[in-house]
Amino acid sequence: MNYNNFFEIKDGWNLQIKELKEDQLVHYGSNLLCGNGYLGYRGTLEEWGKEQYQACVITDTYDMADGKWRELSNSPNALTTKVTVNGKDFGDYPKEDRITTELDFNYKYGIFKRISQSKLESDFEIVSERFASYDNLHLIANKYQINNLDKKEMKLKIGINGDIWDLNGCHLENFTGEYDSNKNIVYLKANTVESKITLVTALSFEFKKGKIKNLKVENEEKSIYLLIKAEAESEKIEMERNMIVYSSNDLNGPLKAALNDAESALKIGYDELKEKHQAVWDKKWELMDIQIKGNLLDQLAVRFNLYHNIIATPAHSERLPIGARGLSCQAYQGSAFWDQEIFNLPMFLFTETETAKNILKYRYHTLDGARQKAEDLGYAGAFYAWISGKSGKELCPSFFFKDVISGRKIRNHFNDWQIHVSPDISYAIWKYYLATEDIDFIVNYGSEILFEVARFLNSRVHYNQFKDQYEIIRLLGPDEYHENVDNNAFTNYQTQFALKKALYFYFKMENEYPEKLEEIKDKINLNESEITAWQEISEKIYLPQPDQSNLIEQFDGYFELEDTTAKVLNDRLIDKAEYWGWPNGVAVFTQVIKQADVIQLFTLHDIFSEEVLTANYDYYEPRTQHGSSLSPSQYAVVAARLGRAEEAYDYFKKSAFIDLMSTNKAVSGGTFIGGIHTAAAGGIWQLIINGFAGMKIDKAGLSFKPVLCQEWEEIQFKLNYQNKKFEIRLNQNEFQLKTAADNSEALKFSVFEKEYFLDAAAEVKIKL
Amino acid sequence: MNYNNFFEIKDGWNLQIKELKEDQLVHYGSNLLCGNGYLGYRGTLEEWGKEQYQACVITDTYDMADGKWRELSNSPNALTTKVTVNGKDFGDYPKEDRITTELDFNYKYGIFKRISQSKLESDFEIVSERFASYDNLHLIANKYQINNLDKKEMKLKIGINGDIWDLNGCHLENFTGEYDSNKNIVYLKANTVESKITLVTALSFEFKKGKIKNLKVENEEKSIYLLIKAEAESEKIEMERNMIVYSSNDLNGPLKAALNDAESALKIGYDELKEKHQAVWDKKWELMDIQIKGNLLDQLAVRFNLYHNIIATPAHSERLPIGARGLSCQAYQGSAFWDQEIFNLPMFLFTETETAKNILKYRYHTLDGARQKAEDLGYAGAFYAWISGKSGKELCPSFFFKDVISGRKIRNHFNDWQIHVSPDISYAIWKYYLATEDIDFIVNYGSEILFEVARFLNSRVHYNQFKDQYEIIRLLGPDEYHENVDNNAFTNYQTQFALKKALYFYFKMENEYPEKLEEIKDKINLNESEITAWQEISEKIYLPQPDQSNLIEQFDGYFELEDTTAKVLNDRLIDKAEYWGWPNGVAVFTQVIKQADVIQLFTLHDIFSEEVLTANYDYYEPRTQHGSSLSPSQYAVVAARLGRAEEAYDYFKKSAFIDLMSTNKAVSGGTFIGGIHTAAAGGIWQLIINGFAGMKIDKAGLSFKPVLCQEWEEIQFKLNYQNKKFEIRLNQNEFQLKTAADNSEALKFSVFEKEYFLDAAAEVKIKL
Ligand SMILES: [Ca+2]
Ligand SMILES: [Ca+2]
Repeated sequence: MNYNNFFEIKDGWNLQIKELKEDQLVHYGSNLLCGNGYLGYRGTLEEWGKEQYQACVITDTYDMADGKWRELSNSPNALTTKVTVNGKDFGDYPKEDRITTELDFNYKYGIFKRISQSKLESDFEIVSERFASYDNLHLIANKYQINNLDKKEMKLKIGINGDIWDLNGCHLENFTGEYDSNKNIVYLKANTVESKITLVTALSFEFKKGKIKNLKVENEEKSIYLLIKAEAESEKIEMERNMIVYSSNDLNGPLKAALNDAESALKIGYDELKEKHQAVWDKKWELMDIQIKGNLLDQLAVRFNLYHNIIATPAHSERLPIGARGLSCQAYQGSAFWDQEIFNLPMFLFTETETAKNILKYRYHTLDGARQKAEDLGYAGAFYAWISGKSGKELCPSFFFKDVISGRKIRNHFNDWQIHVSPDISYAIWKYYLATEDIDFIVNYGSEILFEVARFLNSRVHYNQFKDQYEIIRLLGPDEYHENVDNNAFTNYQTQFALKKALYFYFKMENEYPEKLEEIKDKINLNESEITAWQEISEKIYLPQPDQSNLIEQFDGYFELEDTTAKVLNDRLIDKAEYWGWPNGVAVFTQVIKQADVIQLFTLHDIFSEEVLTANYDYYEPRTQHGSSLSPSQYAVVAARLGRAEEAYDYFKKSAFIDLMSTNKAVSGGTFIGGIHTAAAGGIWQLIINGFAGMKIDKAGLSFKPVLCQEWEEIQFKLNYQNKKFEIRLNQNEFQLKTAADNSEALKFSVFEKEYFLDAAAEVKIKL
Repeated sequence: MNYNNFFEIKDGWNLQIKELKEDQLVHYGSNLLCGNGYLGYRGTLEEWGKEQYQACVITDTYDMADGKWRELSNSPNALTTKVTVNGKDFGDYPKEDRITTELDFNYKYGIFKRISQSKLESDFEIVSERFASYDNLHLIANKYQINNLDKKEMKLKIGINGDIWDLNGCHLENFTGEYDSNKNIVYLKANTVESKITLVTALSFEFKKGKIKNLKVENEEKSIYLLIKAEAESEKIEMERNMIVYSSNDLNGPLKAALNDAESALKIGYDELKEKHQAVWDKKWELMDIQIKGNLLDQLAVRFNLYHNIIATPAHSERLPIGARGLSCQAYQGSAFWDQEIFNLPMFLFTETETAKNILKYRYHTLDGARQKAEDLGYAGAFYAWISGKSGKELCPSFFFKDVISGRKIRNHFNDWQIHVSPDISYAIWKYYLATEDIDFIVNYGSEILFEVARFLNSRVHYNQFKDQYEIIRLLGPDEYHENVDNNAFTNYQTQFALKKALYFYFKMENEYPEKLEEIKDKINLNESEITAWQEISEKIYLPQPDQSNLIEQFDGYFELEDTTAKVLNDRLIDKAEYWGWPNGVAVFTQVIKQADVIQLFTLHDIFSEEVLTANYDYYEPRTQHGSSLSPSQYAVVAARLGRAEEAYDYFKKSAFIDLMSTNKAVSGGTFIGGIHTAAAGGIWQLIINGFAGMKIDKAGLSFKPVLCQEWEEIQFKLNYQNKKFEIRLNQNEFQLKTAADNSEALKFSVFEKEYFLDAAAEVKIKL
């Protein structure tokens, strides 16, 4: 991978793109995203508009404009700018070639900077810097400078552009705007077409250098612009401006709040806003950073992924999902998949546990949507949506892929057969409990989820009287190419696990929180016979066992399918754009799988022998296409567990650079499929902590089985386990664990199965 | 329907085709088939060969020549003939236009006759007549005449042509032949390529008029010919000849048997052979004929269908299936589907009960194949093959249809999800018992089938703990466009029925045949807990009930599918040759069904109210494409039951003329899909007896609910019920039942729910 084709780096936090490439536009927008969990402003130039995929995605603004896809809305763009020098406009990319631009991005603070040089008309320079504030989530602050202006006068068009990019229909209508010349504040108000959310975008600005000679207000149907004749000061113009976004889902009176924030931000000024913002990030990185010594590119890549996992997460709310593409674009509907609990969450479990709790509380608040889905499909309890927005109702349509050969729609069954999302959530709750011992959460939120999931599973399994076992029929496992399968090993094990944990907390609450249990039982009408059923199912559910070759069959009959490789199947494609899976794609009748499936089971459950892990890794690895960005990190974790650090490193490369060095098409057949793969971002944390450091938690406690790849000299990171903080350093020769000075009790853990107890401010070094 | 385009009739037994039409060649071959359940000789001219679909299909000669399809073999053609007059060959159809030919067929005795007139060279005439003997199943007798020979001398090429038509690969190899000039007998011996069956075809001939002046023997690789110069006698040549076929599956020494039969047939002579043959038919028609007054065409059509159902059936054997295309061609592998029990069998149940028993014994002898299939798919007991040949092993491949747009194979699940064939067989056994009271058959054969089917069903159903009911998941019901459905009403009701009948005979045998029961229990290892399970399942199986609109849902979720019509779907086809069904055909996501499904349930089980029948008939009828030839007769039976005699008549027209006036392509894309629809043939009997006469038998006994369509003046037929024979006459005003003189006890029955008892030689007339 020659990353110089894409970017340059000078340290482990910053990258530069020295020359823009047209075919990478879409990726810049996502990779250089300024975000804070509330909004995501894409890495675009101020001159750009919808043709260049400019967007600012706002959380909690679900709307359906095309009658089919419900997605988040984009805000009008309050940073839109057009510079005119000597009567000529600049920046009409990519047609414009009189300007060269460099982009800088700082992943420590999410700061986007552009530096553009005029090539022909004048040697002026545009320097602009912005960030999405973590101090005020509604704020994007921008400092915009024009330097070397040999002509004293030039024109600037600024304002709020409401003619924005949308994936599936225009979400905003009824635009009204105003310019307050006293305060230099502009706003644009609109509402979403279906959900009737009011969205307010405000702009406040001030010239710190240079003067406004003349200002005209121009209203367009969806936009409000200020046409400014400005005079340079010492050949410079310097403008500070603030984009503020509020929706009526945030509070009553979003307009007032927006105007208020716009005004106060102007008073505080860019530099102080930046300081406040950076202070929040400094606190985050204190626990969340992972330092890699020995490879600057890898260091940057790790932080790129951590950064994106953080800004994708609506940590400020307990009622919002982590989108599969975060807030980097509208793709995947800004909605949660199983990725949220299995890929995004783990990092927060051991760092920002409040955020981890919010993520899980989101599943509590969406229980009604999950209950509705279960009922609609003839089941009981909570069947969580495959694609879950704010309400938790199923957003995944029955038809989305097309048979590109016939042009006919394909009925895929992600929405009704891929049931593992429900037990995956139970699994995550259990892990949260192990990591935090937060029994209050369990008692007040988690238990109801666990019970309703168990109830769903009870209604979904089938008892096979002939074999005296419970089975799960007609599934989609993690490997999505094979639909309609029975007894998918991953799903069956997860189901048993979810039932057992529901039972565990049921009996725990019966002893320790009997009143609370009664309250929940009353609320959801839970009766004793259901508990008996959960017990029986968890005892008698069919769990595919390793065969004489130590192999676990992914689902009933998998081993009888044609044994071939993704490479061979690729040659069988009639059209390269064909979908490989159900019902008649090239992979369906073969053993080629889209992604980790049995291997995914291993990363979640360390209950199999090394022989079993080895046999299955060696079997499934060559049969895996890695057609999903979820796959490589999971293979890496298992590779590391097997001591195959170099293979794990290879998978690190595959996973960490999915977006950073994306050469995939982000726009295919006119459909936008780009954006940040947030699950892959979260997977990088797992790959290092669960993979190289070999960390896991289970009933036996916290343990490590470290191994490091040759490419890295040392890794270093901090964790928070059950309110005890500690730092780990791992190199080729040594594993070092140091507890924090303010820990209130000793940390118990094991390394290579040897137990340790460390008081506060203590350390242990273990030779490898 | 202008049948004159196809044929002319002079009475209710005979049809004539006055002028051959090239596009009907394939249909002539099937419709004018001479057959006897052992062989089927297609209705082709003696001059014709494989290009004109000449074939003689021989039962019990399964062989696989293409590595994929196992089918019956065709015999070499011992009636091949070429006539040369004035040095010019005749009969090279369709290029030959110097000859006009008329075909006559007599359905009373299965006699094929051709009369050809020379148009140009001479006014000679060829008259040839043949039949497949029911007196000796191995014999096809032929009388071949050339008249008006103004030239005294001409040439004849006769012999045995082994270069024959095959659907899927050449089945015969290692040809050897001989001509015995003393006896005028020729034979050709070969063996099948895979199954190594020896097949012997012999020819004996004699000139009754005219003389052989010169004879040369010509051997080709696969054929043996005699080149004869013959001299006419009174301007005539008349040859009698006999084609004899034996295989090594019939007996040891097929050659000796063939030569022996060839010799003796010659001695007996054509006319006496024909008398013996006709005597057998006369006996059959005595009970099997149905007379229709008032419409000669319909009368002929009924007999056409009865004839074909009879000759398709290997009544001589208890080890052979009824092919879905009988012995009219190799299509459908000469194998049994559920058609055998549900469509072909009913006629024999009330006429030739020995044949009915043989049909069911075939299922006994193929139990091992069914057990093997169940085991292969992870079930217990007997899962009967969807396509069942001699062994009962599954002959239905996993892939047979093609996606004509992409060219990719389609995985259809006829072989693993269409389970109803097993309970359908149990159903047929019950009906046989009701019709015959043959408890010996049950004790010695039927019970083992019933138990093994019940055992299979036990292993196939799933208990839904949540709903406390048994369900059947992932089915193909009779409507084959919808695969992967749950709780197909037809299948679930049939399953309960099959379990109940297994239990009925289990307890009956426990009381009345305890030793025999113990013997079977030992043999198949049946234990008491299985009986308990059958009881529980039969009590708790989910049976879709009529909803508030009296509608029974065909399967779970059917009513939520797009509600449209076959006509609309036809317009959605990209390619007219597209398959409409699974997985992505135009009908899959709609309520358009291929054939009777809920309606099929009604024809088998008269357990629903008239309101329910009416509602469902009116609902499903416009949604049915009748893409299967099984469908119209079943709609007709229900229409008649509802008193809608004219609608029943419309369905009679659709069903009775499927082959007789076929304008369907019998060859599509080079693939032969023609042949006689034997299930439709059997369906005609049901349509008249169960439909118009409204006959049914159940635990309450024999009953009638007659209604006649306006188009017919009267219908008349005989039945045999529990060894009591009787005749029925039905017209618009009267239903008359007359018992046979030799009945040994009184016949009990009801008409319109009023009961009657009739001694022998008695009659009752009921005004309508
Ligand atoms: Ca530069
Ligand atoms: Ca004539």
